Amino acid sequence: MSKKVVTFGEIMLRLSPPGYQRLVQTDSLDVTYGGGESNVAVSLANYGMQSYFVTKVPQNPLGQSAVNHLRRYGVNVDHTQWGGERLGIYFAETGASQRASVVVYDRANSSIAGIKPGEIDWQTAFAGKDWFHFTGITPALGDDATAVTLEAVKAAKAMGLTVSCDLNYRKKLWSMAKANQVMSGLMEYVDVAVGNEEDAEKVFGIKAQDTDITGGKLSDTGYRQVATQLMERFKLKYVAITLRESFSASENGWSALLYDGQQFVKSREYKIHIVDRVGGGDSFCGALIYALLADYTPQQAVDFAVAASCLKHTIPGDFNHVTLAEVEALAGGDGSGRVQR
Amino acid sequence: MSKKVVTFGEIMLRLSPPGYQRLVQTDSLDVTYGGGESNVAVSLANYGMQSYFVTKVPQNPLGQSAVNHLRRYGVNVDHTQWGGERLGIYFAETGASQRASVVVYDRANSSIAGIKPGEIDWQTAFAGKDWFHFTGITPALGDDATAVTLEAVKAAKAMGLTVSCDLNYRKKLWSMAKANQVMSGLMEYVDVAVGNEEDAEKVFGIKAQDTDITGGKLSDTGYRQVATQLMERFKLKYVAITLRESFSASENGWSALLYDGQQFVKSREYKIHIVDRVGGGDSFCGALIYALLADYTPQQAVDFAVAASCLKHTIPGDFNHVTLAEVEALAGGDGSGRVQR
Amino acid sequence: MSKKVVTFGEIMLRLSPPGYQRLVQTDSLDVTYGGGESNVAVSLANYGMQSYFVTKVPQNPLGQSAVNHLRRYGVNVDHTQWGGERLGIYFAETGASQRASVVVYDRANSSIAGIKPGEIDWQTAFAGKDWFHFTGITPALGDDATAVTLEAVKAAKAMGLTVSCDLNYRKKLWSMAKANQVMSGLMEYVDVAVGNEEDAEKVFGIKAQDTDITGGKLSDTGYRQVATQLMERFKLKYVAITLRESFSASENGWSALLYDGQQFVKSREYKIHIVDRVGGGDSFCGALIYALLADYTPQQAVDFAVAASCLKHTIPGDFNHVTLAEVEALAGGDGSGRVQR
Amino acid sequence: MSKKVVTFGEIMLRLSPPGYQRLVQTDSLDVTYGGGESNVAVSLANYGMQSYFVTKVPQNPLGQSAVNHLRRYGVNVDHTQWGGERLGIYFAETGASQRASVVVYDRANSSIAGIKPGEIDWQTAFAGKDWFHFTGITPALGDDATAVTLEAVKAAKAMGLTVSCDLNYRKKLWSMAKANQVMSGLMEYVDVAVGNEEDAEKVFGIKAQDTDITGGKLSDTGYRQVATQLMERFKLKYVAITLRESFSASENGWSALLYDGQQFVKSREYKIHIVDRVGGGDSFCGALIYALLADYTPQQAVDFAVAASCLKHTIPGDFNHVTLAEVEALAGGDGSGRVQR
Amino acid sequence: MSKKVVTFGEIMLRLSPPGYQRLVQTDSLDVTYGGGESNVAVSLANYGMQSYFVTKVPQNPLGQSAVNHLRRYGVNVDHTQWGGERLGIYFAETGASQRASVVVYDRANSSIAGIKPGEIDWQTAFAGKDWFHFTGITPALGDDATAVTLEAVKAAKAMGLTVSCDLNYRKKLWSMAKANQVMSGLMEYVDVAVGNEEDAEKVFGIKAQDTDITGGKLSDTGYRQVATQLMERFKLKYVAITLRESFSASENGWSALLYDGQQFVKSREYKIHIVDRVGGGDSFCGALIYALLADYTPQQAVDFAVAASCLKHTIPGDFNHVTLAEVEALAGGDGSGRVQR
Amino acid sequence: MSKKVVTFGEIMLRLSPPGYQRLVQTDSLDVTYGGGESNVAVSLANYGMQSYFVTKVPQNPLGQSAVNHLRRYGVNVDHTQWGGERLGIYFAETGASQRASVVVYDRANSSIAGIKPGEIDWQTAFAGKDWFHFTGITPALGDDATAVTLEAVKAAKAMGLTVSCDLNYRKKLWSMAKANQVMSGLMEYVDVAVGNEEDAEKVFGIKAQDTDITGGKLSDTGYRQVATQLMERFKLKYVAITLRESFSASENGWSALLYDGQQFVKSREYKIHIVDRVGGGDSFCGALIYALLADYTPQQAVDFAVAASCLKHTIPGDFNHVTLAEVEALAGGDGSGRVQR
Repeated sequence: MSKKVVTFGEIMLRLSPPGYQRLVQTDSLDVTYGGGESNVAVSLANYGMQSYFVTKVPQNPLGQSAVNHLRRYGVNVDHTQWGGERLGIYFAETGASQRASVVVYDRANSSIAGIKPGEIDWQTAFAGKDWFHFTGITPALGDDATAVTLEAVKAAKAMGLTVSCDLNYRKKLWSMAKANQVMSGLMEYVDVAVGNEEDAEKVFGIKAQDTDITGGKLSDTGYRQVATQLMERFKLKYVAITLRESFSASENGWSALLYDGQQFVKSREYKIHIVDRVGGGDSFCGALIYALLADYTPQQAVDFAVAASCLKHTIPGDFNHVTLAEVEALAGGDGSGRVQR
Repeated sequence: MSKKVVTFGEIMLRLSPPGYQRLVQTDSLDVTYGGGESNVAVSLANYGMQSYFVTKVPQNPLGQSAVNHLRRYGVNVDHTQWGGERLGIYFAETGASQRASVVVYDRANSSIAGIKPGEIDWQTAFAGKDWFHFTGITPALGDDATAVTLEAVKAAKAMGLTVSCDLNYRKKLWSMAKANQVMSGLMEYVDVAVGNEEDAEKVFGIKAQDTDITGGKLSDTGYRQVATQLMERFKLKYVAITLRESFSASENGWSALLYDGQQFVKSREYKIHIVDRVGGGDSFCGALIYALLADYTPQQAVDFAVAASCLKHTIPGDFNHVTLAEVEALAGGDGSGRVQR
Repeated sequence: MSKKVVTFGEIMLRLSPPGYQRLVQTDSLDVTYGGGESNVAVSLANYGMQSYFVTKVPQNPLGQSAVNHLRRYGVNVDHTQWGGERLGIYFAETGASQRASVVVYDRANSSIAGIKPGEIDWQTAFAGKDWFHFTGITPALGDDATAVTLEAVKAAKAMGLTVSCDLNYRKKLWSMAKANQVMSGLMEYVDVAVGNEEDAEKVFGIKAQDTDITGGKLSDTGYRQVATQLMERFKLKYVAITLRESFSASENGWSALLYDGQQFVKSREYKIHIVDRVGGGDSFCGALIYALLADYTPQQAVDFAVAASCLKHTIPGDFNHVTLAEVEALAGGDGSGRVQR
Repeated sequence: MSKKVVTFGEIMLRLSPPGYQRLVQTDSLDVTYGGGESNVAVSLANYGMQSYFVTKVPQNPLGQSAVNHLRRYGVNVDHTQWGGERLGIYFAETGASQRASVVVYDRANSSIAGIKPGEIDWQTAFAGKDWFHFTGITPALGDDATAVTLEAVKAAKAMGLTVSCDLNYRKKLWSMAKANQVMSGLMEYVDVAVGNEEDAEKVFGIKAQDTDITGGKLSDTGYRQVATQLMERFKLKYVAITLRESFSASENGWSALLYDGQQFVKSREYKIHIVDRVGGGDSFCGALIYALLADYTPQQAVDFAVAASCLKHTIPGDFNHVTLAEVEALAGGDGSGRVQR
Repeated sequence: MSKKVVTFGEIMLRLSPPGYQRLVQTDSLDVTYGGGESNVAVSLANYGMQSYFVTKVPQNPLGQSAVNHLRRYGVNVDHTQWGGERLGIYFAETGASQRASVVVYDRANSSIAGIKPGEIDWQTAFAGKDWFHFTGITPALGDDATAVTLEAVKAAKAMGLTVSCDLNYRKKLWSMAKANQVMSGLMEYVDVAVGNEEDAEKVFGIKAQDTDITGGKLSDTGYRQVATQLMERFKLKYVAITLRESFSASENGWSALLYDGQQFVKSREYKIHIVDRVGGGDSFCGALIYALLADYTPQQAVDFAVAASCLKHTIPGDFNHVTLAEVEALAGGDGSGRVQR
Repeated sequence: MSKKVVTFGEIMLRLSPPGYQRLVQTDSLDVTYGGGESNVAVSLANYGMQSYFVTKVPQNPLGQSAVNHLRRYGVNVDHTQWGGERLGIYFAETGASQRASVVVYDRANSSIAGIKPGEIDWQTAFAGKDWFHFTGITPALGDDATAVTLEAVKAAKAMGLTVSCDLNYRKKLWSMAKANQVMSGLMEYVDVAVGNEEDAEKVFGIKAQDTDITGGKLSDTGYRQVATQLMERFKLKYVAITLRESFSASENGWSALLYDGQQFVKSREYKIHIVDRVGGGDSFCGALIYALLADYTPQQAVDFAVAASCLKHTIPGDFNHVTLAEVEALAGGDGSGRVQR
């Protein structure tokens, strides 16, 4: 029987100018919805798992549309809290070549940021579930959101779920000091941590040596040190680190390593021609959770997760609209892009 | 030399589904910008007046785009304050037949709502200007906005500008009691008041008798009473009341009456097939201010203002993209809609 | 606790040229999904009932998208059969004025048309449910589809569900003779029948007298006779007849009458400015089922159902994207279409 | 065997803002191609006649696209002259309600305006053809264009083709005096003249009495006088006059009368909800030529032509994308606009 | 005088999500029409040859639109058979980077698949023509289509036309065994065979040695063996093989070799940044036929054909919208892509 | 206080097919406005300078829209002359890979081409300004335009403005001989000259040795010789040369060198994945003028200008929609394209 995964966080209205237009040029915005944890939930539903997304949205057509968007892609939203002020919004311009993609957040005072401890019935939400996933964004939304996240991880742990966290540091939401303090508390309940090439440093001050991120140079050795420190400090089962080499907004190198406390396994590295880079890390998390729940070996798991997230970079919007078969084909080695008739 | 008019208020990002789609259906939103006072400023610029819009917008691509949109249509934005949290947004669905248009506001915590007394240098803003216009929406944005509006009307009055106010009651922004209290204070400085068929009642409790608004029946007599009471209570020079008969979301009757303390003049009534009804009242105000500054007779003024606003109902977006010649042609009697080659 | 309704039938990919373009002009097609029974299911979900749609779709991105479209609007699709040849398609041009809307069907050999008796586990599908709805389109898809529909109505009846049928005669799918034979057999299990101004005649030869449909003249008396004959012949609880006066493709009169064996109740008649007329009858059925399950009086039920379907005519696509509150407001008398802010 | 009709004139690139946008708002323009004589050619091809369009276009992608657009709809373009400066362009805004549609011409110095006498081999172009049609626009393009038009009508007459002319006065192209002089010379060769409610007056000073065009009042009597005078002055076989009552840009009355020298026959009058009014007169001409070539009676001919052009008003673009069957259905009396499934 | 080429096969409605969207995301589909043989016909018309496309389409707006699309681009469609069930459809997603383009066929039961021997009057269709081209797709549509293709090649051969065949193996349409049997029969009448890097193996079991197609490694030697075997087995005049190195869905290597029984000539190899890869092989065939009919040397012919098809990869849709001059410029060595002003 | 720059020239309506479509395919055109000198004006406004654009446009919605487009992006248009025949138009197809972008001009007889000496009051236009910029396109529009340009440079020089010229040779507008003659006269008044890799040769016959432009090979040495000759011949303060290596329409190398009479400074070279290449050179000029007015060192200036124009290649339309901060970030070395959140 398929495994059940719960994620918790914010879903936002995402508004993007068509093509490569900038916000100051456009008179039309493409509408999708997304957010770290909802993106993970959609990935899991795509692979055939039962996925649940817990959030709070306003009782208006925008809140309804966000929920509808999740339902459309197979995510269970029965635990949605309705109410609060507004749906968070983010504006996303797609960059190209030397011009970076730009994200303008308009997420303050969202319904989920205003959620209060006790609003979510975690006992019900977690009953019969296998896994709980959250990211560093949710507690960063404010003290109430931190408190509710803490409720969640405690309940999940108590009820026997595996808990995973994508560190996902957002400098516009909180300071590094505050992040360190809050996240350190939450990590106590976490089994699987995922981070990218700068999260560990920004959140916990754990730095990869000999690595120049903006310059696009990554050092394996450095990241092994990071993974080791994370695992030791927080008694984790797995640490995964995604490694992005940003040659330009149009072209990235993409790979990851996974550490289970015994060995480091590294994925194949993809050179990606980018369509939409947002949600790349989330698609990695979704696929990694799937792979670990499906009892893949560490090597299989990291290969699957990197292949899945490689494909995400070619799909517009936050969500990773791929099938299990498509990910497996790429993980199995066929990246030729030949037409599938 | 052309007259100079200043308006003050909020400009919002307006997001509308294409055609007659509802928000829950759409995956694209048409982008324009609008708001009562900015709409008036654009109308005045279209007629060749020098129009100035004073506001506060955030220092991001959305604030820049709002300002750009005003510049595009000839409004001077040199007095813009940059800063604050966010640009207000509103979502506007276009209704049809028995389905009403729906406006979903997401304007709380906007930069303009957070403006503080003293931020605007009204002495500079009003130097050499002829007219100041505001609406009941601006003071409804909060106590700070009320205080700044009061600064503005006092300064305008002291500096010899004519002051006009469109009552524009918005029930989502404040209660009738609060509106009555605040607006009564502001009206002390007002020379010209404009309202629609329900504003006077909602704001000041002045009610048109024998009139059933939702049912679409309007009584001239009732509205003359309203105009008389407004004029007496606030010592006004002119009171204008727009009269909308809402047969359906697709078809409205539209006319107005103007009272100068001596006689009531009533415009021709148009039966309008509606394209976009938002901004109808604002286009009336813009045209009325133009006509009064251009020394039209009361009858000419109300005819011009109703013709202008009749045309607005046929144009997508908040702004009234018409030329002086087009308004004059309609006010002069040609509503045949024959192709202009 | 909310009631549970099951519908069964075909969902198709609907492709429409934007605006008023004709198929021979367009180089883009708007994508939605629809079909009589799925449209009913969406209406019920909108009103807060638990609605289930049973169908068969191909295992490809089009079948998946059809299912996703239903999930998006809250319909449970757990009983979907996956397989078969293809998803049925229909092309829909929107007419205007004297130019009729045109539907081009490309639905032959669809997965649902090829469904075999025994494929659906009706025991499971109907367990704990309150109502089953189908239309005359499903059995018209072929002998297998007829057989499965017969399975369904028998099981529904045996399990205590109320059964409703929208006659929905489609001349491109079968002859009147065949329809009469098949539908007569199915009607044996039906409690509530719905038809438009020509279905009863085309399917059962029951004709409204003194009525010229194409000419747009409808006679109440004639339709009462039709309702009476249907009720007597098939021992029904309710007969509802929708009455469309087609002044043009842009403007219709719309009303209905409902007969419970004792009295005839007639709704208010709406004069509708049409945006998209397809799905009008389905939205009537969905709202009628809701009203009857919610124990509305016959007058309330027909008023609710006609108001709901009046609104549908203003919404693009097959589905009726309205809320319970919106329908109630119109049924309660407010058809003024004034902006809802 | 199907009849062969030749038309001669200008085809332009037509650029229109989407929906009801004005030119100053739009950042996208819908592309079609059109022009009086090409529109007639397309109508004839739609009805199954062999239609030929003679023109001159520049040797660039725009000239190629104009030709392609005609080929697409079945018009033979083998006699196209390639060369000259540019393709004429016109910008067309769609009006609504009291706001008129606006056409902005940018057609000066087009390839066809620069055509020289002798460029077209009329002997070849007319060999085996039955009918030649032109409009008052072509000679108005300049003296060269006038000279070539004169070549054409002389050759057509000499070769036994029936010659028709749509007067189509364009005040931006020439004065009434010039039009009178040139058109009087051309009419010598014309058998069938078509005009609207103001052409005869503007071109030949023949005025309908008791008629107020802008006010939308038309008098049958007046138009009969116009038709009689045209016929007598130019020894015509048929005179057709289209009668437009312009209630607004959204709603027109539309009918026509046809005079064969013996009796006046008047069509049914349609009240049209307008989608795109441009090309209305051309679609009348195309249908009238078809009907006369197909030996319809005068009453059948005018009914067919008015039904065809009624439908044109509901179709975006210049061309009348209807089938023979659709026109016949409307001419036969079915204007109910009921969905054709 | 320009040469005349006939092609025969299926034209389908092609529906593609805009940009890089996947089918499960889109709510709009771009419309074009295409198919192997029609694509070749359009190429030939672009180069100034007289090209004819023979097919069967349904008598509905979709069949009409397919025919219109060919007429638009200059293809003669006088031999179209009208009738049958439906127009075949294919859905085409554009891939990027490691994500392959996906084609979903919905072509079963199309009108052309149901064509019967004797329906096409090949004597008339081939009278005065120089060349006949078909692909391996047409006989794969079913036994009737095979029989009609056999009629065609026999008639063509008997009437002295050169016959070319693009092997074009489609695994969804038939098995390798069936393809081998049918194609072997047809090849008896073929003069010029074209295949890609896997057709010869899939259809005739003729395999390039030392070549790993999915891995993107191609061996010249291997392909020379393939060409030699094909020529010997079927007594051909020319064998052309296109060589695609699929680095990713965004980037391919593209070249070809041509064998005339005496020497192997190889084209320049292009590294292509792909816009739309579908129709690449067809554009090669069209250009090759042109070049051979225009008496190019083998080297000129293969260079022209590869340059033409290189350009096709940069153009959306199936058809190769290029001019003779553009192909010659690239074949002549200018691939710099500098702006042509 | 911010510096004031005046530019003078033509602004055109730019019409582009969406995406990579060709003109013969499209039925929609994206609308922007642009032209060499207006593009420079927009760049300067973006960096916070006061920029003024002097031109002449027709008094119609297209002229108005061109002016509006400049106002939108902060350019002062108070010196616009209204009148003349038409707004120039250019059609721009976006190329890809080996397919070049194509520009089709339709600019003859534009209002600005018809401007007469004396129409512009240069004394007023230049009062209080710091810099005047023009390009080789303006004098190429005709003898009148040449005369007015000569008026401008003389007045600018006399009033103490720095004068810059982008050579910008356009072979469709004039011959090399004519260009040489006219431009030599104008250069007498120029302080700063900008050219690309072929302008100096085409206009003045000054050729870079050892350089094959179409083949994409550039030699530093050669360009130093060109710069030296230009400086000596025209007594310039600065000569800047942009160096484009056109690998394909999708990928270019981009750099520049700046010579101040003493030293040659060369920028970093960017390898650009191109979105829209039109306006690349103009964005270089705008940034260079900014940098020189802001007293950057030569190295800083050329680095800033090349970074700015590198970014332009990633933005649709003629204008360079970037902020000062974005250019500085790239000039400072961050070309990683990492998402800016």
